[in-house]
Amino acid sequence: MQSADVIVGYKTYIDLIQDIIQEKQVISTAMTREKERCEAAIEQAAAGYRVAVVSSGDPGVYGMAGLILELLESTGQLKTIPVQIIPGITSATASAARLGAPLMHDFAVISLSDLLTPWETIEKRLEAAAMADFVIVLYNPASKKRDWQIKKAREICLQHKTPTTPVGIVKNAAREDEEIYITDLSGMLDYPIDMLTTVIVGNCSTRRIGEFIITPRGYAL
Amino acid sequence: MQSADVIVGYKTYIDLIQDIIQEKQVISTAMTREKERCEAAIEQAAAGYRVAVVSSGDPGVYGMAGLILELLESTGQLKTIPVQIIPGITSATASAARLGAPLMHDFAVISLSDLLTPWETIEKRLEAAAMADFVIVLYNPASKKRDWQIKKAREICLQHKTPTTPVGIVKNAAREDEEIYITDLSGMLDYPIDMLTTVIVGNCSTRRIGEFIITPRGYAL
Repeated sequence: MQSADVIVGYKTYIDLIQDIIQEKQVISTAMTREKERCEAAIEQAAAGYRVAVVSSGDPGVYGMAGLILELLESTGQLKTIPVQIIPGITSATASAARLGAPLMHDFAVISLSDLLTPWETIEKRLEAAAMADFVIVLYNPASKKRDWQIKKAREICLQHKTPTTPVGIVKNAAREDEEIYITDLSGMLDYPIDMLTTVIVGNCSTRRIGEFIITPRGYAL
Repeated sequence: MQSADVIVGYKTYIDLIQDIIQEKQVISTAMTREKERCEAAIEQAAAGYRVAVVSSGDPGVYGMAGLILELLESTGQLKTIPVQIIPGITSATASAARLGAPLMHDFAVISLSDLLTPWETIEKRLEAAAMADFVIVLYNPASKKRDWQIKKAREICLQHKTPTTPVGIVKNAAREDEEIYITDLSGMLDYPIDMLTTVIVGNCSTRRIGEFIITPRGYAL
């Protein structure tokens, strides 16, 4: 970011990095305007500026990296504009670190947003992941307009996992107003779950120890 | 690490951070000695020192975080020794960033090491993930003594995915001697795959664009 001429990002994320981007040109847009942000970034890059597109978490996990590459391809600029993707800490591992160590064994990351994905696909993945005893990380679990998907996801989990399976809920992971809850499949809907929340459902070995949840890897202790 | 009195870690990782841990007390042990490392760390912490246990990638993904918590529990020290887990960039997202944007849609992370996990469990997860069209990230795909698991994993993928499904192979992600290969399910075994390699198998939408692979999220372009 420090070597960039222009910073492009969703307004909320730009606000979080004000102190390191002072005196840079900033292009920020509202939520759902991902495509416009990417187009603005490409326009600046085509004009010869060094552009940094900012995502929260990791730009390659439901982030902006793929859209940038797709747009560069569709406009024939993939060969003329060099792209470097810088990985970040995605919410699955940021949230896991706050909960203890729930991802010490195989896990599946599933977004519950059916805005761009048919619900049948999401449901199929939830069923497969629950059936094969993956730890399941739910991204975009609910929003103001979208509240039934998390209930349905819980129902699917309950077909293969016990009601006492530990569930960790982290809102605003690693931000100032972070909230952390440890509960189980039975009680999880009693906690606040929204677009800024990540939900981690354990596998059959996941258990609570003290204020943490862990999924043992199987070392003999 | 800078505020720690003692640094504990596998020798290879300690070597990578020499420049930031000068003049610290260092306890390093060989590969497979995870439990001894954790015990040494706990002993130092119990003696009143600030201890940093170093993992590569993210300490909560097949790393040391869970083992530390389990050992603290088994020795009754969970309430007396405070633990903070600091997330890192796990190889799934570090490798994805080098390959383009293969993790823009739901993905499953599966370790092919059957040292601590029965192969039947691993196979069940591979089948479920392939069947439900997850992007699949394979950790610990092979070692000198363990070579058939990656072949079997490929066979299982081929039961549900086409032979032309893009596969990304990253060895030593983000390190000096990094190697990056983009191939497909058909050709993947022709590339070097070992313990330091991460393999990412696409879903049915994953495609090559230029020198990258991407899994489109579904935005209208």
